[in-house]
Amino acid sequence: VRHNGLPSFRENPELVNDQGDRFIGDNNNFGIRRARLVISGDIGDHVSIYIQPDFASVIGDQYNVAILRDLYADIFLDKKKEFRFRVGQSKVPFGFENLQSSQNRLPLDRNDALNSALRDERDLGVFGYWAPAEIRERFKFLVDSGLKGSGDYGVVGVGIYNGQNANRPERNNNLHVVGRVAWPFLFGKQFVEVNVAAYYGKYNVTVTPRDGAPYALAGENDLVDARAAFSLVIYPQPIGFVAEYNFGKGPSLGEAEDNEQYIIDSRRLRGGYAQVMLKLDDVVGEALVPYVRGTIYEGGKKFETNAPRYDVKELELGVEWQIIKALELTLAYDISDRTSSRYPYEQERGDLTRVQLQFNY
Amino acid sequence: VRHNGLPSFRENPELVNDQGDRFIGDNNNFGIRRARLVISGDIGDHVSIYIQPDFASVIGDQYNVAILRDLYADIFLDKKKEFRFRVGQSKVPFGFENLQSSQNRLPLDRNDALNSALRDERDLGVFGYWAPAEIRERFKFLVDSGLKGSGDYGVVGVGIYNGQNANRPERNNNLHVVGRVAWPFLFGKQFVEVNVAAYYGKYNVTVTPRDGAPYALAGENDLVDARAAFSLVIYPQPIGFVAEYNFGKGPSLGEAEDNEQYIIDSRRLRGGYAQVMLKLDDVVGEALVPYVRGTIYEGGKKFETNAPRYDVKELELGVEWQIIKALELTLAYDISDRTSSRYPYEQERGDLTRVQLQFNY
Amino acid sequence: VRHNGLPSFRENPELVNDQGDRFIGDNNNFGIRRARLVISGDIGDHVSIYIQPDFASVIGDQYNVAILRDLYADIFLDKKKEFRFRVGQSKVPFGFENLQSSQNRLPLDRNDALNSALRDERDLGVFGYWAPAEIRERFKFLVDSGLKGSGDYGVVGVGIYNGQNANRPERNNNLHVVGRVAWPFLFGKQFVEVNVAAYYGKYNVTVTPRDGAPYALAGENDLVDARAAFSLVIYPQPIGFVAEYNFGKGPSLGEAEDNEQYIIDSRRLRGGYAQVMLKLDDVVGEALVPYVRGTIYEGGKKFETNAPRYDVKELELGVEWQIIKALELTLAYDISDRTSSRYPYEQERGDLTRVQLQFNY
Repeated sequence: VRHNGLPSFRENPELVNDQGDRFIGDNNNFGIRRARLVISGDIGDHVSIYIQPDFASVIGDQYNVAILRDLYADIFLDKKKEFRFRVGQSKVPFGFENLQSSQNRLPLDRNDALNSALRDERDLGVFGYWAPAEIRERFKFLVDSGLKGSGDYGVVGVGIYNGQNANRPERNNNLHVVGRVAWPFLFGKQFVEVNVAAYYGKYNVTVTPRDGAPYALAGENDLVDARAAFSLVIYPQPIGFVAEYNFGKGPSLGEAEDNEQYIIDSRRLRGGYAQVMLKLDDVVGEALVPYVRGTIYEGGKKFETNAPRYDVKELELGVEWQIIKALELTLAYDISDRTSSRYPYEQERGDLTRVQLQFNY
Repeated sequence: VRHNGLPSFRENPELVNDQGDRFIGDNNNFGIRRARLVISGDIGDHVSIYIQPDFASVIGDQYNVAILRDLYADIFLDKKKEFRFRVGQSKVPFGFENLQSSQNRLPLDRNDALNSALRDERDLGVFGYWAPAEIRERFKFLVDSGLKGSGDYGVVGVGIYNGQNANRPERNNNLHVVGRVAWPFLFGKQFVEVNVAAYYGKYNVTVTPRDGAPYALAGENDLVDARAAFSLVIYPQPIGFVAEYNFGKGPSLGEAEDNEQYIIDSRRLRGGYAQVMLKLDDVVGEALVPYVRGTIYEGGKKFETNAPRYDVKELELGVEWQIIKALELTLAYDISDRTSSRYPYEQERGDLTRVQLQFNY
Repeated sequence: VRHNGLPSFRENPELVNDQGDRFIGDNNNFGIRRARLVISGDIGDHVSIYIQPDFASVIGDQYNVAILRDLYADIFLDKKKEFRFRVGQSKVPFGFENLQSSQNRLPLDRNDALNSALRDERDLGVFGYWAPAEIRERFKFLVDSGLKGSGDYGVVGVGIYNGQNANRPERNNNLHVVGRVAWPFLFGKQFVEVNVAAYYGKYNVTVTPRDGAPYALAGENDLVDARAAFSLVIYPQPIGFVAEYNFGKGPSLGEAEDNEQYIIDSRRLRGGYAQVMLKLDDVVGEALVPYVRGTIYEGGKKFETNAPRYDVKELELGVEWQIIKALELTLAYDISDRTSSRYPYEQERGDLTRVQLQFNY
C-alpha cells in the first residue's frame, strides 16, 4: 500500500492551472492533491490485478470523491514474465515523466508539454509489453534505489486504446494506437535511459460557444491527434539530467493573429522540458534533492472544453527534502507565464512559492 | 475478494441499452463493466457484515466512481444459521438470474423481463431468510462447483423494502413487500431448482415532458408495481436449461395504437427467457460453455424517466471459455429487436458481436 | 475496522433536517446513515496515517457514493507521543459531541448548537496536540470502557484550517484559527471532563436569490465566523450528565421583525444542550442506556445556501440497547420545533419516533 496524501500550503498570485495543481491561484490555502490506495495481487501464475482508486478526486464542487485511476490486469504469457498484456485502464506508454509515479516526481506538477497528451496519463485499452528479465530487474532497481525511475513499461510497448482518456466515455469508433521503445543502460558508473514513443488517433472535442465567443469546429469533429516524443534520462548519481520533447498535431483553437481564435481544428503542437537535479544522501535526513526545470509548450489541450491553445513558459526551482522514509517536504518557486485553463483562456504571468508535504507508505 | 473487471471490445450497430451494457451502441470501443470489491466478515457468532462497492459506476459523464452495490448485515438467530435477517441494501429475492452473480452468468446482460423488476437487482430493507443446513450446503455447492447457482437466498425468503431501488432516495411512504420460495433438488444425477416469487408495492415515477412529447401521469403518482415470477433451472451436468417468466403490472407509457404513448400509468407487463447450455470440462482450458438464450419482454421500465414501454425480442448465441481459473473469455452474437432506453424511445433492430474478458479473484 | 451501517425505519411528520438525518421527514422509509471504513497504520516510529471514506455519502440524487471523511497523518515529535501535528482533513477541536464518534453518541443526531460550527465536524489544515502520556491513557480508557468519551484531541489543541469545511473548495485567502483545552479527571469515583474552545475566521457564503425572495449580502462576502464553547461531561457511572454551550457571530439571514429576512450578515448566535443518561450494564444484553437531551439554538447555518437563520428547540427521549457487542438498537422520540434546511426555511413543529440499528466492528 502506497499513498500520496499531500496537504500543501502556499502563497500565490492569480495563476490557474486545472490540469496541474488545482490549489494554486487566488482563494486557496491547504489542499489535498492525492490520496491513493493500491489493491493488487496475483491470481495464479499468469494473472495479476491492480486497482488504484484516488480518494481525493473532484466532481464539480464536491471534493474527495473516490474515483479510479488504475484498473487493470496483467496477463503474463511466459514463466519469466517477459511478455505480458495489460488489459483495462492504465497509463499509456508515452514519455518518461508521464509514467513516473507522482510520488517519485521532483517538480510539483507534470510538464504541460507531454502531459497534455493524456488526461490523467491514462486510457482504457489493451497494451502489450516486452522486457528481458534482466531489464525488468533494472527498471525495478531504478525505482527501489530512490533514483526515481518510471517503473516497467517494457523495452517495447504497444497498445490500442479508446483515446478519450481516463474515466470518460468513448465518443467515436476510432481507436488510438501507441508504440514506445525504452532502454536503460549503465554509462560508466551512471544509469542512463533513452526512449522514443508515438501515438495516432482521432479525438472528439467538447465545443461550447460563449456569448461573443463563437467557438466552433473548423469542419467535422474527431480531429487528428498524433504525437512523437523523445526522452533522455541521466539518473542522479549524484548529478542527474532529464530532457523530453514532443511534437505533432492535436485539437486546438487557433491564434488571434490568424483570426482563428474561435476555430477548433487539428493544429501543430510542440514542447518539452529540461531538468537538472542533485541528489545529496544522508546530509540532513534521508536525502536532499535540489532541482531546476524549464518547460515550454505551444499547442492545444484537447480534453478541455474548446481545446484552448496554450502558450506555456515556466521555470521551477525547488528542493525535495526526504526527512524520513515516511515524510517528504518539497519547496518550490515557480516563475510562470501560462494560458489559463478557464474561459476566456487568458495569458497569465506570475511567480509563486509552493510547499508540499508528502507521506509515503 | 472477488472481482469482475471486464474490459470488452466489440463491433456494433445503433443499439442502445442503458440498463444492460452501456458500452454497446455506436461510438464505443473498450469498456469496463464492473470492478467490484468485497469487504466482509463475521462480528461474533450472530452477525456478519458485507460491503461491496463497484469502482466502475457512473455519475453523468464521470466514469469509474465508487458507488455501493451491497451494504448489509446478516443477523443469525440460531446456531446452525438456518434463520437470518438481512438488514440494509441487498439483492431483492425475485427470480433466479437476478440473484446469480454477474460473474457466474453466461449471457453478457441480464434478461430484460425479470431484471426490469429492480434497478441493480437491489433495494434497501429488511429481509428474512430460512433454509435448512443441508440446503444451505447445496446452495453453496451449486456455486463452488462451477454450476453457476444463485447462492443462498433461502428456501423461504420474505422482505419489506423502500421500492425506489438501490442508491436512490425513497419518494413515498409505501413499502414494497416480497416473498420467494426456492427448492434445489437432485433429479436422478442432475440438480434441478424451481422457485416462485412475487412482490407488491407502489413506485414513484420520474416524469419529464419533452417538446412535442407531453409525457404525463394518467392520474396520481405512486403507481401499482406488482409481479409474480416462476423459474426452472436444470444445472448443466453437462446439458443444462434455464427458463424464467414473470407477469404483472407496473409503471409504463401506453401504446400509440391506443393513443396513450405519452400517458404513464400502471400497465400490464410480461416476459421471460429460455436458455440452453452445455458445459464441457477440461476440453480446452478449464471449461467451455456454449449457450443460447431467447428473451421476450413487453412492459415498462419504471426506473427510467417516463417509464418507457419496452418491446424486446432478443436471441443471444455465445460461448464462455474459462481459460484458467482467473481468466474467462466470452464471445456472443446478439440478434436484437428492442426499444431504446433514450428519448424518444424508438424501436431498434440490430445484430452485434461482443467480446468480454473477465478476471475472477 | 469500524463501521456504522445504520438502516433505520421510522414514522414521521413533515420535519426536514438535512444536516442531521436526511431520512426523517415525509416520503421516507429505510435509510443508511453511515457506512464507514477505516484504513490506518503506522509508517515508522513517527508517522501514522488515517483514511476514512464513508460509502453512504450523497451527490445530488445519487446515494451511496464513497466520499472521504478523514484523511490525515499524525507526526509525533517525541517518543512518548505526547506532542504531535495532525496534517490533512480531520475533526476540528471544538466542543465535545463534535469530536465524539457517531458510533458512541447516544442521540441520533448531533446537537444543532455546536454542530453548526462545522460541516461534517471537519476541515483541512494543520493541528497541534499535546497531552501527557497519562492523560492519553485516560482518553483511551474513556472510549474503550464504553463510557463514550471523545477520544484524544489533546489536553491542548491548536490549529489553522481553510474554514470552508470538509470536502469543499476553499473560497478565500483567510485561514481559520482554533484553540481548545480539555481536562478529564477523577472526581471521587466518577470521571469528569471539562473543556473550553474558541475559533475565529472568515467564511465565504453561497448566496442564491429566489423569485420574491431577494437574498443578498449586507456588504462584502467573507463574513466573520467566530465562536467560543464550554463543555462539562460527567461520565455515566452509572448516572451521567453532559452540557455544552457556545456563542459568537456567524453568517446568517436576519429576522423578519427587523425587516432583514433576506439580508445575510455576520450575526450573533447562541445555543447549547443538556443531556442526562443512565448506563445499566448486564441487565438485558450488554447495556441499556436511557437518555434525555434538550437542545436550543438561535443562529445561522453558514454552510447552507443563504445561511438561513435557525430557531431550534428540541427534546429527545431515547434508549440505546446494546444487544451484543456487534449490534445496537436505539429508539428515540423527538419533540421538535425547528427551522427547515430547505427554501423557504420555514419553522416546522412535529413529534417523531425513530428507530436505528447500528452494527459495530
